[in-house]
Amino acid sequence: MKLMRVTDPEVVISLIAEQFKPLENEKLTLENAGGHCLFETITAPEDIPGFDRSTVDGYAVYARDTFGSGEGIPAILELIGEVMMGEAAPPIENGQCCLVHTGGMLPEGADAVVMIEDTDQTGTMVQAYRQVAPGENVIRRGEDLKKNDIALLKGHRLRAPEIGMLASLGITTVGVFRQPVVGFFSSGDELVSYNKARLKPGQIRDSNAPALRYLAEQNGATVKYGGILPDRFETFLEKSRALLEETDLLVFSGGSSVGSRDFTARTMQALGEPGLLVEGISIQPGKPTLLANCAGKPVLGLPGHPVSALNIFSIFGKAIIDRLAGRKEKFFHPTVRAVLSRNISSHSGRTEYVRIRLKESEDGLSAVPVFGRSGMLRTLAEADGLLVVPSAKEGLNAGEAVDIFIWE
Amino acid sequence: MKLMRVTDPEVVISLIAEQFKPLENEKLTLENAGGHCLFETITAPEDIPGFDRSTVDGYAVYARDTFGSGEGIPAILELIGEVMMGEAAPPIENGQCCLVHTGGMLPEGADAVVMIEDTDQTGTMVQAYRQVAPGENVIRRGEDLKKNDIALLKGHRLRAPEIGMLASLGITTVGVFRQPVVGFFSSGDELVSYNKARLKPGQIRDSNAPALRYLAEQNGATVKYGGILPDRFETFLEKSRALLEETDLLVFSGGSSVGSRDFTARTMQALGEPGLLVEGISIQPGKPTLLANCAGKPVLGLPGHPVSALNIFSIFGKAIIDRLAGRKEKFFHPTVRAVLSRNISSHSGRTEYVRIRLKESEDGLSAVPVFGRSGMLRTLAEADGLLVVPSAKEGLNAGEAVDIFIWE
Repeated sequence: MKLMRVTDPEVVISLIAEQFKPLENEKLTLENAGGHCLFETITAPEDIPGFDRSTVDGYAVYARDTFGSGEGIPAILELIGEVMMGEAAPPIENGQCCLVHTGGMLPEGADAVVMIEDTDQTGTMVQAYRQVAPGENVIRRGEDLKKNDIALLKGHRLRAPEIGMLASLGITTVGVFRQPVVGFFSSGDELVSYNKARLKPGQIRDSNAPALRYLAEQNGATVKYGGILPDRFETFLEKSRALLEETDLLVFSGGSSVGSRDFTARTMQALGEPGLLVEGISIQPGKPTLLANCAGKPVLGLPGHPVSALNIFSIFGKAIIDRLAGRKEKFFHPTVRAVLSRNISSHSGRTEYVRIRLKESEDGLSAVPVFGRSGMLRTLAEADGLLVVPSAKEGLNAGEAVDIFIWE
Repeated sequence: MKLMRVTDPEVVISLIAEQFKPLENEKLTLENAGGHCLFETITAPEDIPGFDRSTVDGYAVYARDTFGSGEGIPAILELIGEVMMGEAAPPIENGQCCLVHTGGMLPEGADAVVMIEDTDQTGTMVQAYRQVAPGENVIRRGEDLKKNDIALLKGHRLRAPEIGMLASLGITTVGVFRQPVVGFFSSGDELVSYNKARLKPGQIRDSNAPALRYLAEQNGATVKYGGILPDRFETFLEKSRALLEETDLLVFSGGSSVGSRDFTARTMQALGEPGLLVEGISIQPGKPTLLANCAGKPVLGLPGHPVSALNIFSIFGKAIIDRLAGRKEKFFHPTVRAVLSRNISSHSGRTEYVRIRLKESEDGLSAVPVFGRSGMLRTLAEADGLLVVPSAKEGLNAGEAVDIFIWE
């Protein structure tokens, strides 16, 4: 049999960054831009906030009018009115003050606010029992962003705070990297659509198609499903060429027979230069994975076993989607720390992904391995996440602290 | 001034579970069910897999025919054909074998598969150089799920593995807890829509509406935005009543003026029994938060400052959405471990959320606090996540290992 050239997972991740470029610019309204990465650097078109604002309910004053005041020796100020929310404030003079609410505009002249708790009001006379420094209880015009400041750099991913910041600047459409359209094919003569009610002997339902669709959509991609490919090479290639034309990433899944595996590789070679890059990854589960660059577009061939297919797509499919969508490679990944409940043996020389169920115990969280073959989705449904055993290790011991990647 | 009854964050989370019930059942196609929680317990309508399958490429055999064979003493078997993928296999007799591919059906009689690497074939004669035990290289009918086995329990959240499992069973629609529709209002006379290009003095754009929309949608909710409420109580109440009618959770945001805060509380009391539950949470930022139960529906009043509003919604808004969607409260939360770069002081007696930027250094990850007032979205956009300083602590020291919750 042909020996596979097996590539390290880290090398595959680097290859993805080297070989594929982020997609082009797309203009989106702010309401639809969440999760996308900026294609442009945003500079502030105006100061934020646009005026000095009070951060408390109180009286806007000249700070120096309060100097020296305290519990027994209040400063006496003349109340000249109230700042109405959303309106310009009337100016004040030395010795005067103006009622202002949280978020309200400071009157011209005022440079601080005395909190209402520190005052007494009688008619138009306000007694301030605490001195304030200039700027106290005030957010200055431009303190958040000054006009022409860089607000967000190209490549910054739009989360809720960034959307809020753009909204505060009055920016309603933004240029972002387009998120990819992923084309999926299933292959293998044993496969039938998952909505087929009754199976003939030897048939199984294509469970990968809807599961992978969800993973792709979770990562911001749009999915076009091309159906189940027949084990006939001409049709296989022709349909693949057509779907690749309409998509940014093509994924083959489900075929574990020699025929479909072979067709996938041949198709990858025929779809465009340079073709096949990776034939096998030193990872468990998921070794028989194919990756190609077909005229600049990524094409991924997943192993047929469902658990392997989901594992590989959640690592490398996600990395490709992230790259195409302009997302920076993260140097941190959230995990849950737990104590391994039993010894795990593993082969050194390959990275192993062990399914883990988390259990609450008196001593904290316990990480319980869920064993089972890679064809068994039940084992993955029982698992909360995965433990990565690096290729240099030959196993892990019960009682070790481990970090679990959670399946959301 | 009126003193707030300030509630502990943990108490608020428990209140949410006590006071609100998950929403009703909704039937969804599998393609749209991802992220939802099952309203029904799913039992397997058939065995998965439906037949004994080979897990390798090889020859299906009677295991006992190979007993005693080895490197120099092959078992000699008669090849009677090939199992075609997706078709029933022809039965074999003692002394016979049949070529089978990964995932192919085992012939009647066969109970194991010899891997092709361990054989030589000459015409219809196969020499097997390795003995196999019964069941070796075979996944048995029903090994993943037996007919009538419980596949997934009511309440189980549908992730990719669960969707794959349901698809493998031929289940194309499922009953799930409906995910909530969230109604949002902004309030405060200083606010104008974020698509207003030019502001008058004293006005600011409503940046919370689109930011909160994104947070709600990220958590699986649908959003109805009711606009900016005027500081007039009758209209405030009337519009709130109408939007609450069409939604499962009502959220007030943006008003930091005394008027709008007061109207929010009065409206909560008027919308239905029991009304206001929480007036202030011992959390920083975000203390002036209101929570009500209005005739069974949750109503949340967020603080006006953008950072506070996002912080509160990402904790308590999310908890309410999770509860309504039937999600179980998780006992684990993924975080990133890092080393605190400098001392942080905090007030004991309240839980503090400190914005953190993560930095790569030679010694691992460093957690750098991003300081700034709660009105400043820039500080949140610069942060990768949040560090929680528990209320019992008075601060944390530089060099301590801390767990950071990442903003996605």
